Amino acid sequence: MKQITCSQTKAISDRLVFDGDLNDKGTLFGGKTLSMLDENAGLAAFKFINVKVATANYDYTNFWNPITTKDSIRITSYVTGASERAIEVFTKIATTDLKTYQTKIAFTSFSTLVTLRQFGEVNFPELIPETDEEKFLCSGWQDRVMERKNSYHAAKVFLQHLDSND
Amino acid sequence: MKQITCSQTKAISDRLVFDGDLNDKGTLFGGKTLSMLDENAGLAAFKFINVKVATANYDYTNFWNPITTKDSIRITSYVTGASERAIEVFTKIATTDLKTYQTKIAFTSFSTLVTLRQFGEVNFPELIPETDEEKFLCSGWQDRVMERKNSYHAAKVFLQHLDSND
Amino acid sequence: MKQITCSQTKAISDRLVFDGDLNDKGTLFGGKTLSMLDENAGLAAFKFINVKVATANYDYTNFWNPITTKDSIRITSYVTGASERAIEVFTKIATTDLKTYQTKIAFTSFSTLVTLRQFGEVNFPELIPETDEEKFLCSGWQDRVMERKNSYHAAKVFLQHLDSND
Amino acid sequence: MKQITCSQTKAISDRLVFDGDLNDKGTLFGGKTLSMLDENAGLAAFKFINVKVATANYDYTNFWNPITTKDSIRITSYVTGASERAIEVFTKIATTDLKTYQTKIAFTSFSTLVTLRQFGEVNFPELIPETDEEKFLCSGWQDRVMERKNSYHAAKVFLQHLDSND
Amino acid sequence: MKQITCSQTKAISDRLVFDGDLNDKGTLFGGKTLSMLDENAGLAAFKFINVKVATANYDYTNFWNPITTKDSIRITSYVTGASERAIEVFTKIATTDLKTYQTKIAFTSFSTLVTLRQFGEVNFPELIPETDEEKFLCSGWQDRVMERKNSYHAAKVFLQHLDSND
Amino acid sequence: MKQITCSQTKAISDRLVFDGDLNDKGTLFGGKTLSMLDENAGLAAFKFINVKVATANYDYTNFWNPITTKDSIRITSYVTGASERAIEVFTKIATTDLKTYQTKIAFTSFSTLVTLRQFGEVNFPELIPETDEEKFLCSGWQDRVMERKNSYHAAKVFLQHLDSND
Repeated sequence: MKQITCSQTKAISDRLVFDGDLNDKGTLFGGKTLSMLDENAGLAAFKFINVKVATANYDYTNFWNPITTKDSIRITSYVTGASERAIEVFTKIATTDLKTYQTKIAFTSFSTLVTLRQFGEVNFPELIPETDEEKFLCSGWQDRVMERKNSYHAAKVFLQHLDSND
Repeated sequence: MKQITCSQTKAISDRLVFDGDLNDKGTLFGGKTLSMLDENAGLAAFKFINVKVATANYDYTNFWNPITTKDSIRITSYVTGASERAIEVFTKIATTDLKTYQTKIAFTSFSTLVTLRQFGEVNFPELIPETDEEKFLCSGWQDRVMERKNSYHAAKVFLQHLDSND
Repeated sequence: MKQITCSQTKAISDRLVFDGDLNDKGTLFGGKTLSMLDENAGLAAFKFINVKVATANYDYTNFWNPITTKDSIRITSYVTGASERAIEVFTKIATTDLKTYQTKIAFTSFSTLVTLRQFGEVNFPELIPETDEEKFLCSGWQDRVMERKNSYHAAKVFLQHLDSND
Repeated sequence: MKQITCSQTKAISDRLVFDGDLNDKGTLFGGKTLSMLDENAGLAAFKFINVKVATANYDYTNFWNPITTKDSIRITSYVTGASERAIEVFTKIATTDLKTYQTKIAFTSFSTLVTLRQFGEVNFPELIPETDEEKFLCSGWQDRVMERKNSYHAAKVFLQHLDSND
Repeated sequence: MKQITCSQTKAISDRLVFDGDLNDKGTLFGGKTLSMLDENAGLAAFKFINVKVATANYDYTNFWNPITTKDSIRITSYVTGASERAIEVFTKIATTDLKTYQTKIAFTSFSTLVTLRQFGEVNFPELIPETDEEKFLCSGWQDRVMERKNSYHAAKVFLQHLDSND
Repeated sequence: MKQITCSQTKAISDRLVFDGDLNDKGTLFGGKTLSMLDENAGLAAFKFINVKVATANYDYTNFWNPITTKDSIRITSYVTGASERAIEVFTKIATTDLKTYQTKIAFTSFSTLVTLRQFGEVNFPELIPETDEEKFLCSGWQDRVMERKNSYHAAKVFLQHLDSND
């Protein structure tokens, strides 16, 4: 069985924050970042398994600290678990204050991407975590899969209460 | 105490789906939609309480059905609960197949937006659900707030395992 | 003959106005809005008759009131008449001052969209206006078609005075 | 009294047409072009009188010929009349088929831009047309101003039938 | 042999400079302009020889003067030499201060574009410079080709020192 | 004197290449990439010295290999020399073929950024190269500065032949 390290799936993107990227609150970090999240997480999944994937859900998505134009940011995504057709990707955004070089976690999210049915069964490589962070996140994967299944079933029920016509 | 109906907070956006909005999988629904979600949810919160808000988190974010260029979409957001500084906004995206006029729920998400500290304590109006869907969603609000608190505390622990420098 | 109400062709889009959407005059309402107009009107025509259409002209296009970042806007388009290959779509943009909830009409336009020749003759459904506004606008349709024909003939003459090389 | 030629107010923009600029009909000429129109017409007005202006209306806006990726386009705008606070700008888009070098007029429009009230009375320079096209267009200016006044009055009546709340 | 004047290959684009186009330094002239350069130079090459081309390099790229929102700009590109598969295009950006009508050269660049191999050998037309500027630039073409060959060979050596994995 | 390693100034951005990012030649690598280059190089300079900078020129800009949607790309920029007010930043774009994991250098460029005069004299930290590539590039810096000075003087002469009015 092929092996791949978390690090080999890592997608990194350093960005400056421009005035135009923030909304009129000066610190709110909105749609543009979600866009970058989606692209970066997709790239990590793509490095893990070179097959087309679609995002199925986001969870544990939190904005921990505001991001301002005083910061540069680094978006880091890597795979933290995979089974059947589903790949879990963790994304964090860290800010670096360009005056003090202090870094902070500003945003975290897990996304689940699924390989498209047309590609049939896909043999995922074995995922090898190396750093403490990677080990910690991969060790929680089974629990998150369980929680996700539970909340998916709850959501299915919930879906029946929604009106697609209004 | 001022009252406001869910419907008065409703933000609606009908959109055509262009080829350029989809990625190369032809059906994947990614960053551009998250952008529209963020803008539309922000508008609902803004209609509820005319004070600047920042997104704190997204949860229960699911892509239920693919969105393609055969569909028009309607993004609907409205407030489903609020207390202290936090406003919960529900967003759904429904597709309409333009040949058959069949509608489907393609995407749902709850976002939590908080009023900025600089505005101090804000008196939220009393929220009045009217339709079945609105009543159902508002009735689950307290539970979701509890779950969110639990998972926030779990996440705080989780944060300590993350490395902001790598 | 199939019937369709004006309301069934309605395309709605609520938007916040961001600083970046306005030009340096702070109130000028320019290219970005024309873009939104074009997309929204196209969606209304598409809901009326699911066949590809191309914009042939805009007329009665007026900016009645400035739009600023204090407003949310609602763009509403619906079909107000159709014959042969031409569909007339009315679009209005209403602003809501988010402090006072006062609404104003900021912009109106009629666009004419034509079905592409490759689709041959298309049977348009019968259009049924319901509200006062819809009845008023549909009742003026024949006159606007006449005016448009006159001004199209005048414009054909006018075209001969134009130099496509300079 | 200062004089200025039409030609001195001319704003020109040559563009290639990319696939991404056309919508899925392959020839439809939509929102992106209206954006370019708005920018180019604004620049012509700005060259005429260096004062901030806002677009008041568009009229005689026609799409005469489709624009495709086989063409390069030239957008040309210049001032064709001005009085009180209103400046009329004519814009044409000519296509050049890059194989045959045949040129065609694809789009024409007149826009009216007004100087902002805060700048008070503005002394417009005297406008001097030179080419046949310029003379023809400037000679029709008085008539268009009259028509615009009539249709503005008609539109004011029309406005009263519109509902800004629905 | 077919002849073509520099002027016939000329691509012009007048633009206003918006606040959003400048970065937070207020005068820095960055990525957006390089985008416009690339499009405009491509159009000049396309007018010269209607065959698909790809940019091979930029050189002599200098930002001579800042560009601010007080200026309108004119981007001018035209062909200044061609042989084998390579077309040299010169691009200059001139600013006009909209108060004083003073013009300045703000940016210059030469780009080399090559016809794609799939089109085989292409017969370039003979290029005829007419103005002093065109004659000056075309007369330097042979020297620039030589310099470019030398620096290309140097760069090939240089390439061997680069690490494509880090 | 403060020291900083090349690596500490490094800005990295991994990107997927979308269909919409390429022009209609399918492989041409144009304006969008120059945009990413400008942002990434700016970020490297910003990490080196937290003072506002403006791009003065690009040189040695070559497109070595086409970039296609089969590739992911990594843009890497870092500082390779600095003196007086000028900072030299090297940028390379490496492609990874997502099927074969083969990497290639697709693009390289040196940009020179200058600190704004308003910040007066700036004390640059001492730059420490560590890897072979870094050492190689930093060792060539003095020569490139000399060449740049020569070609700047040549360009000044050249500027006098340009017409800012046509």
